[in-house]
Amino acid sequence: MLWSRALIPTLKETPQEAESISHQLMLRAGMIRMLMAGVYSYLPLGLRVLNNIQDIIRQEMDACGASELLLPALQPQELWIRSGRDKDMGQVMIRFTDRRGRNSCLGPTHEEVITDLVKNHISSYRQLPLILYQIQTKFRDEIRPRFGVVRANEFIMKDAYSFDKDEAGINKNYKLMHKAYNRIFKRCGLKILTVEAEPGVMGGNMSHEFMVPADIGEDLVWICPRCKSARPAIGEKQGICSQCEVQLETINSIEVGHIFKLGTKYSSVLGANFLDGQGKLKPIIMGCYGIGVSRLMAAIIEQNHDREGIIWPGQISPYQVIILALDVTDRRIMKEASEVYRELGRGGIEALFDDRDERAGVKFKDADLLGINLQIIIGKESLKKNSIELKLRLNHKKISGSKQAVLRQVKKIAQCNRVS
Amino acid sequence: MLWSRALIPTLKETPQEAESISHQLMLRAGMIRMLMAGVYSYLPLGLRVLNNIQDIIRQEMDACGASELLLPALQPQELWIRSGRDKDMGQVMIRFTDRRGRNSCLGPTHEEVITDLVKNHISSYRQLPLILYQIQTKFRDEIRPRFGVVRANEFIMKDAYSFDKDEAGINKNYKLMHKAYNRIFKRCGLKILTVEAEPGVMGGNMSHEFMVPADIGEDLVWICPRCKSARPAIGEKQGICSQCEVQLETINSIEVGHIFKLGTKYSSVLGANFLDGQGKLKPIIMGCYGIGVSRLMAAIIEQNHDREGIIWPGQISPYQVIILALDVTDRRIMKEASEVYRELGRGGIEALFDDRDERAGVKFKDADLLGINLQIIIGKESLKKNSIELKLRLNHKKISGSKQAVLRQVKKIAQCNRVS
Repeated sequence: MLWSRALIPTLKETPQEAESISHQLMLRAGMIRMLMAGVYSYLPLGLRVLNNIQDIIRQEMDACGASELLLPALQPQELWIRSGRDKDMGQVMIRFTDRRGRNSCLGPTHEEVITDLVKNHISSYRQLPLILYQIQTKFRDEIRPRFGVVRANEFIMKDAYSFDKDEAGINKNYKLMHKAYNRIFKRCGLKILTVEAEPGVMGGNMSHEFMVPADIGEDLVWICPRCKSARPAIGEKQGICSQCEVQLETINSIEVGHIFKLGTKYSSVLGANFLDGQGKLKPIIMGCYGIGVSRLMAAIIEQNHDREGIIWPGQISPYQVIILALDVTDRRIMKEASEVYRELGRGGIEALFDDRDERAGVKFKDADLLGINLQIIIGKESLKKNSIELKLRLNHKKISGSKQAVLRQVKKIAQCNRVS
Repeated sequence: MLWSRALIPTLKETPQEAESISHQLMLRAGMIRMLMAGVYSYLPLGLRVLNNIQDIIRQEMDACGASELLLPALQPQELWIRSGRDKDMGQVMIRFTDRRGRNSCLGPTHEEVITDLVKNHISSYRQLPLILYQIQTKFRDEIRPRFGVVRANEFIMKDAYSFDKDEAGINKNYKLMHKAYNRIFKRCGLKILTVEAEPGVMGGNMSHEFMVPADIGEDLVWICPRCKSARPAIGEKQGICSQCEVQLETINSIEVGHIFKLGTKYSSVLGANFLDGQGKLKPIIMGCYGIGVSRLMAAIIEQNHDREGIIWPGQISPYQVIILALDVTDRRIMKEASEVYRELGRGGIEALFDDRDERAGVKFKDADLLGINLQIIIGKESLKKNSIELKLRLNHKKISGSKQAVLRQVKKIAQCNRVS
């Protein structure tokens, strides 16, 4: 993509309204813009990052044998009244009456809708187990949206649901999902803590949270400074690690994933039953597995940045390469840069070509801010020596070499980034 | 994908609530299910078709130099009051007041939001032209939702917006988009009519509609039976073709795309201005270009089906191949079928493996109903002759051959389908 044809409005100054590093950097790198409090537009660069995260999630979900579908945002309130959660949701759920008088709402989550769907199509134990998931936009009327996309009124979530005939089945699927979550967060470049948590409003009998330690995190986790075991900070007393007998420490973290053994909470109320091997009618045993997709983007930045800007993990980087043409009025520079751009395209490597009529200093600063893994720098001085430069965003290391040598190196690194 | 692990609930009977062929077939093939009137869940097969359509649209938009972004569904009503369209939208726009008292709405379209976004980032003619697009979910409170996803309250749309500094620019982009639309609809297997239309509520001074002739179409088009030129049926008098001097005929059609030269309607009201080469402040000249993505799915089926079911155009087919194991209790059949499935996977060809414990007759009927291009049929009789069968859904032609010969043939056809 040519920078001049995209909309990547970088900012020199840190916007005052942004309190967190990730929010500041997402605004400064031109990834998002606020439409109203808690509601954001994803500009081209932000959307590419979102898509990369979604690709990783899809790959890992599909590898679990899960099937993707897409459920509606519009839902009948009646379904929530039947499940008993209409009141639980309180003002968080956006409700309205449509022109035909139907009491509708915007789905803050989809347990009711998926249970209602599965109920009509699963009738026998032979059709189980089943895992369904979606990556979809959810709506919540947050009383206090914060930190950009971390707590937003409109956000993207991956929600998966498992359906089993017995305890052995749900235990297997729960473990499968737990492992998939670890792989997903690892591929997203995140160091996470997993804590056993209270199921809360979701119901059920077991749940784990996946937490990203970060200063802005609004969830507190107690962690043992020695064995690193973690648990949610509930109640007043901080406790002592039972293993190591040392005082636990409190750390702030962002919840990026949450998995639940729901049991039969939804299936029994909404009537999602199946006939078992003995012809007996039983409620389906369910699990649900969420990841905050748009929030994940912020969490990744919280853990992967330096003073200059974002440092994207390889598989998340919106482009693998940014090409810096240091002077667009210089014919030779533009010729070489265009050739590099085309050659990368032929090799299936997507690059952002900074073809803006800007000073070299602006381009250097913006490239570091954007956080794209590899920078290919093409300027007058190095071209005199028939060479171009490759800079690694992570450690600012620079290598000089012929165009072909640099391209070979770039292809090798890009190849590694693609492999999970 | 193993059929037994997916949710593909086919129906033998035609559901009574579905009036149109496409709606009937989408329900019968297990592609969609209604949650409430005008609101549908896309089951795994339906979502795959949606994704294929979206891939084609993305490729053609990107080829025009357009950049993809993602705008919010939640919008402030205030923006619609400023543009003067709040009243125009009437009850179609879903409005609500959030807990902080903000008058919000769900975007039925995004001219206001994109103009407001671009206004803050484009200030000079040097930044133009620019084309932005999104594929996103829109909400409309339809008084009479009909024909499944054809007229729905929640639907997926591709909306693109062009920004230019002068008439020459918008003319060029308009033509570029017009051509891209023709390619998109062709790749979707559609025969379309293009008619020059009234800009209507969108405003502006030129617009073209892309119409799919279909019995259920709610838009009337006048067409010359000789030269095939088309125009919208507006007013009472049917007219005579000025070229051929024959009586025009009326045909029903579904509007799947609409492109508009908006001019400065939105930019001037919302203050999206730029400085031209002479330093003069001017409103940006805009165009907008929509495609009803979910509706397109129905239109494709209306034009591509027979008595047995859907016949997907090559690039739209949810899977390239369906493998029919005619008796899952037969070890040899399952061994051969699994090998074919794995071998296709290794070749990058996605297949649906009908591993259900169902009679051969059910599998044949369902495969024809689903409309997947290629059927690989593995049964006892042919295996006795060391062969398997390949059936083309389009013309019901069958070829017998060794596993290797059939796989070679399948790879060849799948390869052709991939090329645009």
